[in-house]
Amino acid sequence: MGRWEPDARGRMIRAAMELFAERGFEQTTAGDIAESAGVTERTFFRHFADKREVLFDGSATMERTAYDAILAAPDHLSPLDAALAGMVTGGGLLEDLRDHAVRRSRIIAANPSLQERELLKLAAMVDATTEALRKRGVTEPAASLAAHSAVTVFHVAFARWVSAEEPPGLAECIAEAAAALRALR
Amino acid sequence: MGRWEPDARGRMIRAAMELFAERGFEQTTAGDIAESAGVTERTFFRHFADKREVLFDGSATMERTAYDAILAAPDHLSPLDAALAGMVTGGGLLEDLRDHAVRRSRIIAANPSLQERELLKLAAMVDATTEALRKRGVTEPAASLAAHSAVTVFHVAFARWVSAEEPPGLAECIAEAAAALRALR
Repeated sequence: MGRWEPDARGRMIRAAMELFAERGFEQTTAGDIAESAGVTERTFFRHFADKREVLFDGSATMERTAYDAILAAPDHLSPLDAALAGMVTGGGLLEDLRDHAVRRSRIIAANPSLQERELLKLAAMVDATTEALRKRGVTEPAASLAAHSAVTVFHVAFARWVSAEEPPGLAECIAEAAAALRALR
Repeated sequence: MGRWEPDARGRMIRAAMELFAERGFEQTTAGDIAESAGVTERTFFRHFADKREVLFDGSATMERTAYDAILAAPDHLSPLDAALAGMVTGGGLLEDLRDHAVRRSRIIAANPSLQERELLKLAAMVDATTEALRKRGVTEPAASLAAHSAVTVFHVAFARWVSAEEPPGLAECIAEAAAALRALR
């Protein structure tokens, strides 16, 4: 990025969040976001494949962080515990961003095409987690089942974290959802 | 449907499967499917919202069957066991259709837009299962977690059923995946 665009990415994300909340997601174009952030449409598309991706900016980083944490988890951890360690470390990236997460969740809840994109991101997180567990030597079907279970725990914990009145931190929400999952059997 | 269209729906599904396998999904239009099945395009769209839906014809029926089975499951079953009973009963609809399921899975595996639709159908099955568990008096987060876990078991079992060389029946694949899930903790 040129020096004339300090934090262009951050400005586009903030502009998009405001426009989506004010006008609605469908009524906002990539051009509107670029204009509001003071960049060209070409700059917008150098950063984001489409306007939906603005809301999933951190997901690739989170996926990579979780993947690395699973590989780095102590050897004695069970596949599920290793996968959950990945969710806690990945979720740690969001811990200080709850206000943003709450606003983002409201926008997604109002738009089926965004919910669809979210399902794809969650499926990608399951795949990355499965792959990390296989690298730890976990065989099938345990790798897939543990990965799905851990991402489910994250999904349920995250939903509580953004919707409850005064929730504990995301890490605590993940720990409580994991305990509830274990209590199911 | 008029009497001049005996099993038009079945003919459209069979025609679509053949065309998707021969020409590829992207290269096949709704008009091609209608023509090959000997119906008008208008008839096609009276049955299916788009050409993707042809491959998900049974999913609403399966969802309803699973939902009813969960409500009808014995009171003493745990939330997870009730949800799994729903998967087994729903999966029972497919037990005699393995050849169709194998062909269908190959078509879906080759097309990202079909994989996306499959994720939406699985998410709808999680929602229906959660709703059925809530009707049984299960509270959150147990209802969501048990529903996600049961659909994951179904998903993993189904993948094995359609990809293994000589798999046992789908019900047996579900039972084995459920046992592997329990063994995770």
